[in-house]
Amino acid sequence: MLIDKNSPIGVFDSGIGGLSVLRQFIRFLPSENYVYLGDTARVPYGNKSGHTVETYAKELTKFLLSKGVKIIISACNTVSALALDIVKQTAGDIPVIGMIEPAASAALRSTRNGKIGIIGTRATIGSNAYLHEIQKLESGSNYEVYSKACPLFVPIVEEGLLRHEAAKLIVEEYLHELRSKEVDTLVLGCTHYPLLTHLISDFMPDTTLIDTGEHSSVTALRLLAEKNLLLNPDLKFIDKPKIQFHVTDLPTNFFEQAKNFLGFEIDKPHLTDLTDLS
Amino acid sequence: MLIDKNSPIGVFDSGIGGLSVLRQFIRFLPSENYVYLGDTARVPYGNKSGHTVETYAKELTKFLLSKGVKIIISACNTVSALALDIVKQTAGDIPVIGMIEPAASAALRSTRNGKIGIIGTRATIGSNAYLHEIQKLESGSNYEVYSKACPLFVPIVEEGLLRHEAAKLIVEEYLHELRSKEVDTLVLGCTHYPLLTHLISDFMPDTTLIDTGEHSSVTALRLLAEKNLLLNPDLKFIDKPKIQFHVTDLPTNFFEQAKNFLGFEIDKPHLTDLTDLS
Repeated sequence: MLIDKNSPIGVFDSGIGGLSVLRQFIRFLPSENYVYLGDTARVPYGNKSGHTVETYAKELTKFLLSKGVKIIISACNTVSALALDIVKQTAGDIPVIGMIEPAASAALRSTRNGKIGIIGTRATIGSNAYLHEIQKLESGSNYEVYSKACPLFVPIVEEGLLRHEAAKLIVEEYLHELRSKEVDTLVLGCTHYPLLTHLISDFMPDTTLIDTGEHSSVTALRLLAEKNLLLNPDLKFIDKPKIQFHVTDLPTNFFEQAKNFLGFEIDKPHLTDLTDLS
Repeated sequence: MLIDKNSPIGVFDSGIGGLSVLRQFIRFLPSENYVYLGDTARVPYGNKSGHTVETYAKELTKFLLSKGVKIIISACNTVSALALDIVKQTAGDIPVIGMIEPAASAALRSTRNGKIGIIGTRATIGSNAYLHEIQKLESGSNYEVYSKACPLFVPIVEEGLLRHEAAKLIVEEYLHELRSKEVDTLVLGCTHYPLLTHLISDFMPDTTLIDTGEHSSVTALRLLAEKNLLLNPDLKFIDKPKIQFHVTDLPTNFFEQAKNFLGFEIDKPHLTDLTDLS
């Protein structure tokens, strides 16, 4: 199948956290067209069964395919951990990039002392997806991986308490152990966590933070460039990136949160019913 | 001329500030081989005449060519501003990437309110190189550019005062005007400034900082990927990136500074006499 370079880049997530991933894509590929799909009606996926996550992942993929995307980014850590194979099967010739591999690979290449920390939701940490990916990439034993679930980070971000003293204290509470282990590289294994970068960096100034969105966007850039599927850089001043937003529900403080994740205000999203496609 | 993808990436700078650029390259292209050349005997270039800078730029370029590089990165802002054409002429078929265009382009694409700040040394700001590049890329008038020379930032970084209270006060002194202009995008137009990111971000939390090394590395990644000149990602755990260091002089606190810029300790560099090649 011939893929058209003029087609948009498709990004899906269980909710709006994936907008932090989209933000990184826009940073490095600002001239591209984007379709973003957030399954806000069924978020979060973290505690759902593997079978349900697979069913949802298939629906998200089919929706983006129906929009004619040239690549699919699974910005959802849960889908990336549990159902990326289903996404790839469903996508056929359209390339798929998840969150786990680019970040695991970046962590392995970033560490100098071999001590890597992983933080994420309970579900992500419990799945050991990052640990398994690191072990798959590098079977040696010259590194140590320390994982820590940080369940309060998501609600802190969603309540907008990004500079609150309480947020600082919770960062210290969750991360003091990883700091005492002297991890020199820390994977932010949840799309919400990049919004806490300033607090995490203040607490662990010598630790390299791995932003899954950043590394997946550079992975996508490379893959698309090698297949000659990138748009020519459009050097015009862009008031707003070209993004089509789709959500399955419009939560109350959607626009405020979206602005926190993306860095700018978004247009009204389309309300979408995914179950039509399943 | 056929370029060999196994050749190293060449990076030159007037001194060791370019190591902050190299750090970004390693972040996104960790499997590549690198040759770094710092003209530490003749640093800084900022106040030298255009003719002298051109002569030096030619020597730096010839040196990297003699190492068989597949691309040349001018990590020096002064060379990028005053002598990039000479570098390109000297390099022939080998592609050349400077600091100005990738950062100017990133700034134009990042701003939402059209207010862009540029900071750099007196020489860089005086040359108006970033402003001219922005105007070249976008001839419209729907943006405003504010420039500010920050002469104390380089010595602060070189003295390692990265977390000193005085550094914080000087950041506030230099940047309060740009903050009051509400620039939403700030170009760090000097290779030393990324080491002050934490202080600048604390003072201007809603401003997007443009790191010239980051954007030049992503520009190089794209260019090399499109020409099929990247090494296959080597997924092995890397203790240290493969870098050959060359300097024209070994300054007293070289290793300490290099570690600050690169994030890890470097091997003893080769001492090189550039005048052999001129």
